Amino acid sequence: MKHTISVLVENHFGVLARVSGMFSARGYNIDSLCVGETEDPTASRMTVVVRGDDRVLEQIVKQLNKLVEVIEVRDLTRESYVERELVMVKIAADSSRRSEITDIANIFRAKVVDISAGAMTVEVTGSEGKVKAFIDMMRPFGIRELVRTGRIAIARSVKDKENQEET
Amino acid sequence: MKHTISVLVENHFGVLARVSGMFSARGYNIDSLCVGETEDPTASRMTVVVRGDDRVLEQIVKQLNKLVEVIEVRDLTRESYVERELVMVKIAADSSRRSEITDIANIFRAKVVDISAGAMTVEVTGSEGKVKAFIDMMRPFGIRELVRTGRIAIARSVKDKENQEET
Repeated sequence: MKHTISVLVENHFGVLARVSGMFSARGYNIDSLCVGETEDPTASRMTVVVRGDDRVLEQIVKQLNKLVEVIEVRDLTRESYVERELVMVKIAADSSRRSEITDIANIFRAKVVDISAGAMTVEVTGSEGKVKAFIDMMRPFGIRELVRTGRIAIARSVKDKENQEET
Repeated sequence: MKHTISVLVENHFGVLARVSGMFSARGYNIDSLCVGETEDPTASRMTVVVRGDDRVLEQIVKQLNKLVEVIEVRDLTRESYVERELVMVKIAADSSRRSEITDIANIFRAKVVDISAGAMTVEVTGSEGKVKAFIDMMRPFGIRELVRTGRIAIARSVKDKENQEET
């Protein structure tokens, strides 16, 4: 099972090396990882997607909490959350295929971000399922390059969770 | 100066730890890092944003090329490229502020992805400048949470580069 973990860390030098070193030393494999700034300049947020059962997850959360630079760890899979990924795909496309690709892009609310005589680059955001569906539709045209951010996630508001539990 | 480096790596266990360990051991500070799957299941692509002058960058590229798991390193800052980041922002918003926030979101082609009685979560993609401008507009409402993927980048097509050089 895939788990999405959100880790708030101090913006110290080498903290990414320490966190990813912990994952590799313990044999936990990472599907994707993003690290970026937050509103607090002293902290960064990592979003990590890992595979494992509940026991493995419990171990990971415990190990992360042991690291002094780690401020907070949340296993979002246990909560109600919104998950998104950004992907850019460069597709082989001469002028005869452009409108077909643009039509598919529109259905997925994807945006064309670059175009040349022989290729188009399209940006799409969405859940894992939507991104996969879009890439599957683009594959027959010929994917030249694919860059993905990995997933980020944000918990739904407490109010929402309460509402969901009531209904 | 900020540099965007795109690193294609073998999808081996522990490669992220090795790459980020190299950055921290040598004292290079990372602004953001994303690692995600590619079309080739044996390879992952990392996009790293680092600060440094040309000499530092040359060193980083050299050190990365020394790692056996590294397949290809490109300093995209030297090329013509498209750069994007995905950010989710949770903003304090009761019913009286919602339409104002939605109006701003529409101008930035941002999407509301979650809403509750007291908060809204908005997703926006764009270049560093656009994302910063959007966050600056949201700040007065009260940012409760902010998650960013860090930047990904893709080179413009060769054809485009040639055209640009000609003109």
